[in-house]
Amino acid sequence: MTTLNVDLGDRSYPILIDRELIGSVGLLKQYIPARQVMVVSNETVAPLYLDKLLSTLTDFEVHTHILPDGEEFKNLQILDGIFDALLKVPCDREVTLIALGGGVVGDITGFAAACYQRGVPFIQIPTTLLAQVDSSVGGKTAVNHPRGKNMIGAFYQPRCVVADTGSLDTLDDRQLSAGLAEVIKYGLIRDPGFFSWLEENMDALVDRDAAALSYCIERSCRNKAEVVAQDEHEAGVRALLNLGHTFGHAIEAGMGYGNWLHGEAVATGMLMAADLSRRSGWLSDQDVYRTGALLKRAGLPVVPPSELTASRYRDLMKVDKKVKSGHIRLVLLKSIGEAFVCDDYDEALLNQTLSAQTIY
Amino acid sequence: MTTLNVDLGDRSYPILIDRELIGSVGLLKQYIPARQVMVVSNETVAPLYLDKLLSTLTDFEVHTHILPDGEEFKNLQILDGIFDALLKVPCDREVTLIALGGGVVGDITGFAAACYQRGVPFIQIPTTLLAQVDSSVGGKTAVNHPRGKNMIGAFYQPRCVVADTGSLDTLDDRQLSAGLAEVIKYGLIRDPGFFSWLEENMDALVDRDAAALSYCIERSCRNKAEVVAQDEHEAGVRALLNLGHTFGHAIEAGMGYGNWLHGEAVATGMLMAADLSRRSGWLSDQDVYRTGALLKRAGLPVVPPSELTASRYRDLMKVDKKVKSGHIRLVLLKSIGEAFVCDDYDEALLNQTLSAQTIY
Repeated sequence: MTTLNVDLGDRSYPILIDRELIGSVGLLKQYIPARQVMVVSNETVAPLYLDKLLSTLTDFEVHTHILPDGEEFKNLQILDGIFDALLKVPCDREVTLIALGGGVVGDITGFAAACYQRGVPFIQIPTTLLAQVDSSVGGKTAVNHPRGKNMIGAFYQPRCVVADTGSLDTLDDRQLSAGLAEVIKYGLIRDPGFFSWLEENMDALVDRDAAALSYCIERSCRNKAEVVAQDEHEAGVRALLNLGHTFGHAIEAGMGYGNWLHGEAVATGMLMAADLSRRSGWLSDQDVYRTGALLKRAGLPVVPPSELTASRYRDLMKVDKKVKSGHIRLVLLKSIGEAFVCDDYDEALLNQTLSAQTIY
Repeated sequence: MTTLNVDLGDRSYPILIDRELIGSVGLLKQYIPARQVMVVSNETVAPLYLDKLLSTLTDFEVHTHILPDGEEFKNLQILDGIFDALLKVPCDREVTLIALGGGVVGDITGFAAACYQRGVPFIQIPTTLLAQVDSSVGGKTAVNHPRGKNMIGAFYQPRCVVADTGSLDTLDDRQLSAGLAEVIKYGLIRDPGFFSWLEENMDALVDRDAAALSYCIERSCRNKAEVVAQDEHEAGVRALLNLGHTFGHAIEAGMGYGNWLHGEAVATGMLMAADLSRRSGWLSDQDVYRTGALLKRAGLPVVPPSELTASRYRDLMKVDKKVKSGHIRLVLLKSIGEAFVCDDYDEALLNQTLSAQTIY
């Protein structure tokens, strides 16, 4: 088992990575401070892993709550359903919430843990690649609002993250690709060596080679943990993790939550960021090409949706957490491995990127 | 102007107390970090003080959002209305939320500030006695759930608290009395000298003597600030501030939010706590008598609602943030000025208190 530490003072916690962790008896015990536990999962993941998890929790009073599956259910109403389930028991202020599922389950359960009785203990068990390499680590929790993604949430750290790489065996190809988008992101923003490794090993990853997947999860989590430890609340460097996300959130909201997967929208969004970086003279044609080629090999979309006009993009992008005094700030690229937050791009060039039918 | 400091390290903030602060130009400027401001108020308070406040904010892009008035509106649906108003503008992550109103406006606006884009700056301008002496200070924010009061919330500190004592001129008598319940609480739990002062000055307070009110607000805020500085997240001593609240929340929820004012329910709840303390042999008859007499002179109810049976109380009290492993913990009294969290009261004596038709 690999253990990485997210170093946040008295809120530090481990990320445990290995196959077959979900059924590992005794593994979670030290992270559950009291008798009551509520496992939140969804209707896709629960039939696959819930019984296995419950079999390790026989020492506790365990309740379960199953959500519908999909980004379109990451909202206040479904959140209220979790509160209702907790209060119906009733669960007290020491109940531990366990999120068993992908990014949606983790984000909404984490936010429920942040708010229930003003905060209860919380454990992440991510079962998708995207959740294992990105959303389960770092304490960002949220639900969506019809007017914008992740607009309502909290910074709230889990007690531990358990990444069972065996759970990827049941992940469909589209979801695996979506996770690879966030993996490629780490290479693009801060780890050029990892980007090269991904270029060499993308076929193995897509073929689900266990050793390759395991290495890519570890290296991604290490990157994420380093950034989060430097800047927990996104006052600075953490913003770089949002490469492609301002464009991507606009695609997700504009196309209707659940139609484009988050990772798919981020992939196309990263390519749009690369395109604007090139048009601005900051990034070479060659680096845009490498980015597009790698995303494509990962099975990700590299063509923006034709349904969205530049003006619709702009409306959607105005609702973004990086907007400051009405100005849309963007994460752009200087090279593969170096990103920066940009305030002074040319608006006309942004319009060209937003209107481009093909980039790669 | 009196300035008290709530000492919480990098989350420290001042409580400013004086007449005519709401219209004071320049007072808030240093607490508003960026251009956008949204003032949240309610339909009772807005006609009285909103224009005065807005006249001091001409340097900012100010938006307003008016809530219906009453505890029954402190819920997730009304909270979502605040998010919707913020996103409709759209307001960015540096918008400052200002709560102008009583405890309900402060609690829900504070929680909105804690969650909007994972946290934005927040200012409290409490306009009721209860909010000035209690709910605006200390960072507890929340909304109610049909199954329990304040069950969904966050610890989130404001940038400053502005208590304009002039705003009490427009407060109706019932609301003034409700505030006095929390004032009396400080005497009961930790400040016996203040309790004696209240016995001497209750007539002046009820007659709205400005000097007496001003002194009682200052001394209450000082007590609250000291407790919060010792224990921000209620791991220990802060729980004593909940004297009467477990009984009181049961009364509020059981009678329907908005029928009993929070302060009224707390008053009767404190007398019930005193009653159980007496039955347990911890508190003298004389101290129960003094408590009941002072609450009555403050215009507060001292008779529990006859509608609630002991078994209904128990069901309602099971949903309380002090419940631990299924056991209802209570704040009880050893004397006037000394409270403690009690785990080992006699269940039969609690039943007697819950069934008592008269206490005082």
